Amino acid sequence: MITCLPDTEIERFLEEDLPYGDLTTHLLGIGQKRGEICFTTRHDTTLCCTEEAARLLEKCGCRVTLQTSSGTRLPAKQTFLRAEGAAQALHAGWKVAVNLLEYGSGIATRTARIVTAAREINPCIAVLTTRKTFPGTKKIAIKAICAGGALPHRLGLSETVLVFKQHTAFMGGLEPFLRHLKTLKREALETRIIVEADSPEEALLIAQSGVDLVQVDKLPPDQLKALVEQIRQINPAVKVSAAGGINEQNAAEYAATGVDILVLSSVYFGKPADIGATIVAV
Amino acid sequence: MITCLPDTEIERFLEEDLPYGDLTTHLLGIGQKRGEICFTTRHDTTLCCTEEAARLLEKCGCRVTLQTSSGTRLPAKQTFLRAEGAAQALHAGWKVAVNLLEYGSGIATRTARIVTAAREINPCIAVLTTRKTFPGTKKIAIKAICAGGALPHRLGLSETVLVFKQHTAFMGGLEPFLRHLKTLKREALETRIIVEADSPEEALLIAQSGVDLVQVDKLPPDQLKALVEQIRQINPAVKVSAAGGINEQNAAEYAATGVDILVLSSVYFGKPADIGATIVAV
Amino acid sequence: MITCLPDTEIERFLEEDLPYGDLTTHLLGIGQKRGEICFTTRHDTTLCCTEEAARLLEKCGCRVTLQTSSGTRLPAKQTFLRAEGAAQALHAGWKVAVNLLEYGSGIATRTARIVTAAREINPCIAVLTTRKTFPGTKKIAIKAICAGGALPHRLGLSETVLVFKQHTAFMGGLEPFLRHLKTLKREALETRIIVEADSPEEALLIAQSGVDLVQVDKLPPDQLKALVEQIRQINPAVKVSAAGGINEQNAAEYAATGVDILVLSSVYFGKPADIGATIVAV
Amino acid sequence: MITCLPDTEIERFLEEDLPYGDLTTHLLGIGQKRGEICFTTRHDTTLCCTEEAARLLEKCGCRVTLQTSSGTRLPAKQTFLRAEGAAQALHAGWKVAVNLLEYGSGIATRTARIVTAAREINPCIAVLTTRKTFPGTKKIAIKAICAGGALPHRLGLSETVLVFKQHTAFMGGLEPFLRHLKTLKREALETRIIVEADSPEEALLIAQSGVDLVQVDKLPPDQLKALVEQIRQINPAVKVSAAGGINEQNAAEYAATGVDILVLSSVYFGKPADIGATIVAV
Amino acid sequence: MITCLPDTEIERFLEEDLPYGDLTTHLLGIGQKRGEICFTTRHDTTLCCTEEAARLLEKCGCRVTLQTSSGTRLPAKQTFLRAEGAAQALHAGWKVAVNLLEYGSGIATRTARIVTAAREINPCIAVLTTRKTFPGTKKIAIKAICAGGALPHRLGLSETVLVFKQHTAFMGGLEPFLRHLKTLKREALETRIIVEADSPEEALLIAQSGVDLVQVDKLPPDQLKALVEQIRQINPAVKVSAAGGINEQNAAEYAATGVDILVLSSVYFGKPADIGATIVAV
Amino acid sequence: MITCLPDTEIERFLEEDLPYGDLTTHLLGIGQKRGEICFTTRHDTTLCCTEEAARLLEKCGCRVTLQTSSGTRLPAKQTFLRAEGAAQALHAGWKVAVNLLEYGSGIATRTARIVTAAREINPCIAVLTTRKTFPGTKKIAIKAICAGGALPHRLGLSETVLVFKQHTAFMGGLEPFLRHLKTLKREALETRIIVEADSPEEALLIAQSGVDLVQVDKLPPDQLKALVEQIRQINPAVKVSAAGGINEQNAAEYAATGVDILVLSSVYFGKPADIGATIVAV
Repeated sequence: MITCLPDTEIERFLEEDLPYGDLTTHLLGIGQKRGEICFTTRHDTTLCCTEEAARLLEKCGCRVTLQTSSGTRLPAKQTFLRAEGAAQALHAGWKVAVNLLEYGSGIATRTARIVTAAREINPCIAVLTTRKTFPGTKKIAIKAICAGGALPHRLGLSETVLVFKQHTAFMGGLEPFLRHLKTLKREALETRIIVEADSPEEALLIAQSGVDLVQVDKLPPDQLKALVEQIRQINPAVKVSAAGGINEQNAAEYAATGVDILVLSSVYFGKPADIGATIVAV
Repeated sequence: MITCLPDTEIERFLEEDLPYGDLTTHLLGIGQKRGEICFTTRHDTTLCCTEEAARLLEKCGCRVTLQTSSGTRLPAKQTFLRAEGAAQALHAGWKVAVNLLEYGSGIATRTARIVTAAREINPCIAVLTTRKTFPGTKKIAIKAICAGGALPHRLGLSETVLVFKQHTAFMGGLEPFLRHLKTLKREALETRIIVEADSPEEALLIAQSGVDLVQVDKLPPDQLKALVEQIRQINPAVKVSAAGGINEQNAAEYAATGVDILVLSSVYFGKPADIGATIVAV
Repeated sequence: MITCLPDTEIERFLEEDLPYGDLTTHLLGIGQKRGEICFTTRHDTTLCCTEEAARLLEKCGCRVTLQTSSGTRLPAKQTFLRAEGAAQALHAGWKVAVNLLEYGSGIATRTARIVTAAREINPCIAVLTTRKTFPGTKKIAIKAICAGGALPHRLGLSETVLVFKQHTAFMGGLEPFLRHLKTLKREALETRIIVEADSPEEALLIAQSGVDLVQVDKLPPDQLKALVEQIRQINPAVKVSAAGGINEQNAAEYAATGVDILVLSSVYFGKPADIGATIVAV
Repeated sequence: MITCLPDTEIERFLEEDLPYGDLTTHLLGIGQKRGEICFTTRHDTTLCCTEEAARLLEKCGCRVTLQTSSGTRLPAKQTFLRAEGAAQALHAGWKVAVNLLEYGSGIATRTARIVTAAREINPCIAVLTTRKTFPGTKKIAIKAICAGGALPHRLGLSETVLVFKQHTAFMGGLEPFLRHLKTLKREALETRIIVEADSPEEALLIAQSGVDLVQVDKLPPDQLKALVEQIRQINPAVKVSAAGGINEQNAAEYAATGVDILVLSSVYFGKPADIGATIVAV
Repeated sequence: MITCLPDTEIERFLEEDLPYGDLTTHLLGIGQKRGEICFTTRHDTTLCCTEEAARLLEKCGCRVTLQTSSGTRLPAKQTFLRAEGAAQALHAGWKVAVNLLEYGSGIATRTARIVTAAREINPCIAVLTTRKTFPGTKKIAIKAICAGGALPHRLGLSETVLVFKQHTAFMGGLEPFLRHLKTLKREALETRIIVEADSPEEALLIAQSGVDLVQVDKLPPDQLKALVEQIRQINPAVKVSAAGGINEQNAAEYAATGVDILVLSSVYFGKPADIGATIVAV
Repeated sequence: MITCLPDTEIERFLEEDLPYGDLTTHLLGIGQKRGEICFTTRHDTTLCCTEEAARLLEKCGCRVTLQTSSGTRLPAKQTFLRAEGAAQALHAGWKVAVNLLEYGSGIATRTARIVTAAREINPCIAVLTTRKTFPGTKKIAIKAICAGGALPHRLGLSETVLVFKQHTAFMGGLEPFLRHLKTLKREALETRIIVEADSPEEALLIAQSGVDLVQVDKLPPDQLKALVEQIRQINPAVKVSAAGGINEQNAAEYAATGVDILVLSSVYFGKPADIGATIVAV
């Protein structure tokens, strides 16, 4: 999933920041002077949005002379993107590029840390991320979690079947829904059926029902571990995922419960990666 | 600044989440059943994006029956937005509305806490936020910081003059730039001239030069306090702002240094507000 | 999936047809006269895009007085949509509405006929449609196939795993790919793995390999029937779909082969439904 | 009219198909491998949208090595477009390019067949196509009919004067309208006045009235032939067009009626051209 | 042609002016106070864009209480648009609405004056306007010239045939082109053929050739008058238009030359109408 | 501020003019012939939008062989932009490029003349332009006034504080507002506070109040001169701007009043620059 955002999106970011050009550079009269911009990691970072940052700098009129792929993990103090051009081109792209790189790489880096922590405990566990992205940022966010080694849990409502109590409320509750399951499975032959459980009791009911996957919401790791064992005895074929409040601090503990999948949103927010940008005259 | 995002933006958020309708609701055959959705605070929250969430629910076909304005501060467990409609309408809007409310109110709530903390120390201090928003979120972010009591430091490059070392690099350094200042001020008569200092020495030079505002980057509070005193003696007319790494933990301490303005980005990221959403059949 | 296209899309259709207003109505000076428009089936039709046509007429300034839902099946000569307004409003919306209704209902009607024909043979068979829509029409097309009783096979490349020989070409062929399958299944736990076979031999190899679904491309029904029996013996758990050239003429025959799923594109093109539109002065 | 669709439109087609990258290629880990894609006719084809397909492949990161112009007529088994690049680039563009080429060339090929058939009978006849395109496809459709040798009858409502009974309904019928014709002609000096007749009687009235062109709707060829003769006697200067239900099967017969123009919509729908696409590793 | 611009366009105008809300109103704390806005002519004005201004005010949250149609001619000091709402809604719409009204009505008023002046001399003359609109304003401009009583000469390159020396340059000059005319006329049966002449000699050649209309560029009225007489003798069927530099000062003089059509661009620029806008608290 | 408009905007201008290609060039069959286009000044011109015109020609398929920067002042008869390509590419770009250049350079040239005239009288005076641009043209207009040596007075409502009587109406009038000023200044520390005066009396009140700038609306130069002297005595620190009806005819006279700033809209409209474009076959 390491493609580049469309040009219209990249133009949109530039438009947000300089709808009518750069007043400071214009007033200082330095626009035509030549310079170089360098982007450097300030801590261990899994890069994301380098392709977009490079494209954005090109759109401003710069020439990119060094570019490292999204998904690359770098230690601190590594220069991974460099471009040269007129001062007005460098200044037009500078902060928007930094923002893209910092927010994108922040998500990728958090994701990579969680994937690593979870797989140290359970090498086969899948780390999937929800659709709770900041509105307007889904393309960057999905690219970043892929760059960090995770996959999207679902991209939206149109392509997956995930049943919440907010659905079963219209069917008389969980049990009436489960009686409807056979029909549902026949209609959605190519799609896995996932049902969220709000308690261990519900999880057991769901696991017995023949769904593909039971998603257990907000159960503490120790209770979850016991539940997973029960589910495995009842129905070894059903997959189990844990969701709700999983983050860098508790991911390893959740991985140790024996679930097949961690579903999380926490990578989408938090401190952006810290990336240094220097501009020098040449 | 408490206006509503344009409809095209709100449609865009919906499109991102359900480009082709809601598969689960469609397959369950519950789309036409009637229900109600309620949004409730789970902690002390300064609301933001309630106008957009309401508009979004209307666009999905719901009727809004309760709506509280952005900028309202509520304790936990308060219902502030409620709508009714067909299950397919409620499900279409549910998570996108939650995301808007949680990310928007998260920024507003963090902002409100920092403004409160800083003004307890210095009632006249201004809290301004940078342009380091997540690309694609600027409208939500600016609305949210205003809802929380701050103002934007600058909206982009086109409307303000803020000189960094990345500019003076093209003029031979800070001092040659300062010699150019008189011309700059004459041309930009309606705009305040702000110059960032990377050290106390630079700050003093800048303060003496006749700019409107010196912005001091990443100076620890104790050193900053001493610097502010020196600047006040040299030039009581110049304003001083502190920037770089200011957040909820240290805002009060920075306010105590005597600066006129805190400039910060930290409110833009961090955990979204936690907002409960219930859907019930009616 | 019976939602309405976004307003921006509906405006776009109008813009395509009358970017600067309606010259004929303007020159005739009849714009302000009042009239009524009626839309009527001319043959047995499964309706689609009535919601969009109604919205479009409203955007032109008409008042909708009768509206029937997408997905409704009607015999010939039934009026299903009616609106009143100024002549300039009726003329602005007339042909664009007809086009939407005819192309949308054409797809829905063809789909409904195929679904009916296939389910008469095999009541449990799923009818799924490919992503081979006319570029620019995906939203209408997906709504229409859902209105006709089918579901999308895949919405695009981002949310499903479907392996063609165009993929295995980069892995040394089908067999090397199948050896990689275990890893793939672990990573894509929530997504069904579908592999397309270009011959019965490939289909048997794939069916044994542990994928979720083997898609058999362009095999004549009689050969397919024999193949399905072989696959059922080898691996009763794997699902089988038939793809390639399935249409109204042969859908029943393909349904009789015992496959679980028909995958087809033929509903996307062909003659639009014939819908009458009368405009009368009132 | 052989220009290329705007980049934003081409990006839009890609976005529809892979909004978040290609999951299959990503999971198979083949994205960086090099390959080649070839597009080949499978039957006698008048090409359309080769420029757009090439641009689309370039936008995906491919390098185009062979490109044939829209409007070229090729027999079966001719390779007319070829590109090379990383597997992820080839897979990103593959099906969207095929769809563009197949739908575009399908329209162009049908158009070319009709133009050829009609001109064999009457070398001076014009073949014009209506505005009944699938909503969202007008740019492709108009390019394709031009590539096939036809011209647009009218692009929309803003630039032509075409009077239907749906207009005259607001003027008291056809005859009151015809009395108004002189004024209309004076105001629309640069635009031809076209009036549609729903019967031979109306056609004669219209032909006598001084309009530029009478369009005869849905009259069988034999009756139309007789009518054309009558019109030529009454008014040799008026042009006559036939509209309504003209297609590949009956175009020659309609051409033989002696009308000046065939107006048709049937080229816009029907089976897309069949175009083979192979991807090989290099 | 008196329709309303699409909502997306109207939102775009608002976005240009207040991308992040109204800082002044926000800081003054007056946003929620109620008021009324009134728009009043300051001179004899042909209104345009009142529909758009009203829609724009509604989008800002105002309620429109008086609205007069585009195309209405008013003397000075007439209130033609009024709305009420919160101060923040009134201020959001105020200047954008004024700009729309002033630029739109400026064009409409200039057009109406020219149409009146020309028709006093020659009641049958048509006044048509070129495609030389300010890029980005075509929809407003075309609506405005229609409101003022003119029609568009051509909307763009896609729907008309207008031959300039910049075309004949590729055919060896005017005469070789005229020899090609018969073919051209046969292909473009529904479209009038217009050819521009750069001298009286060319005009006579063109008039004899069988085109529908000869457009004479930049010929002084007295010479044009003589030329028109010559053309009438040579070919009474051909229409003659005058183009190039026609404006309010010389329109009557050009009308007196006997041409059928005046083609002009001068209405598109010039001083906007002066429209008063008052805002009062209520 | 001499950057280029975004590609999407440039495509939009082309789309407006040739949504479906160029009918004339297509029918003449000259599309593939090679030619050259040259753009030449016809009077003393300050260029603007040469970058956009060049980009637009490239998008049409031309190769640019000469390009002069926006902001350059040229005498008559200078060729400043030249491109070569196929006739269809040259014709596609010709008039849109001319329009961009003529409207953009018209604004730039008027601006440059006013700036020159005002600075001859007062070398330190600033010339600023309002936000009263033709809706849809702000990017071109702002680029053009910068090219002509002015700066924007305010880009919109979101980034400046400018108080009109339309604001103070909600506060009980000017004096109650001025009592609120201290609070306002504390909150908007980084923004200059500007207040418009509708009479000399108001101007004096405002000047005494401590605002940064008093803007005097529509006062004749002689009265303004006397007022400026009074203001200088009362408060030498406050800046004074003149607004309302300032144009090329009276700019020097206003400059002579001693104000610091001229604020004007008149450069945005008026006759476009006259630019010659020749196309020749090569």
